[in-house]
Amino acid sequence: MQTTEFLEQLIANLAFNEQGLIPAIVQDSRTQQVLMMAWMNSDSIQQTLDQGETVFWSRSRQELWHKGATSGNVQHVIEIRVDCDGDTLLILVDPAGPACHTGQTSCFYRNASEFANGNQHDR
Amino acid sequence: MQTTEFLEQLIANLAFNEQGLIPAIVQDSRTQQVLMMAWMNSDSIQQTLDQGETVFWSRSRQELWHKGATSGNVQHVIEIRVDCDGDTLLILVDPAGPACHTGQTSCFYRNASEFANGNQHDR
Repeated sequence: MQTTEFLEQLIANLAFNEQGLIPAIVQDSRTQQVLMMAWMNSDSIQQTLDQGETVFWSRSRQELWHKGATSGNVQHVIEIRVDCDGDTLLILVDPAGPACHTGQTSCFYRNASEFANGNQHDR
Repeated sequence: MQTTEFLEQLIANLAFNEQGLIPAIVQDSRTQQVLMMAWMNSDSIQQTLDQGETVFWSRSRQELWHKGATSGNVQHVIEIRVDCDGDTLLILVDPAGPACHTGQTSCFYRNASEFANGNQHDR
């Protein structure tokens, strides 16, 4: 339950980039595993607060993207943190399932060597 | 100790943005705390691998930025991970000191309410 004033103050003070976007790191609040990184705009931040689940901005589709809306793998928001210069979000979540479209718990399932030597683009 | 071939394959397959940059999330390998997010280009990735400490690209200063070069708060690189679509790095580090220029361990030292209500820009 967020007040309109809180949302307005938050949005007004975040440092969005020239496309009106801000990177959002998603971390599992219990395991502390970093699950993914995606982008938010002011609308997706509002919807994330309203719904209590992560809603991103899909740069490829140019539309709001309610994570897990089709797969069921929603991410319940536990806490939103902001970095020192206000240009990155850290969202602590309780995930209902894997974060990655590959079925992996985290999108960061490969180290740099595995990535460089293998299947680079599991899109 | 990285081979040139590994570096070339890694650089060739990462999805840099239109400015030739890729976001790098920095996480403490022991505590799992997310410390900061910064940007890398191909040169900073090469230097990070060569030196075993994080080297970023400073977008404000438009120059390579060896984290901790002046403060001593370097970040020893334990592992570099890559996300599913190759457009974000997760760097696990052993930090020699605080990540944040404010002296806080992590740049994400405020939740959204504290940020919205308080000093938004501790630059």
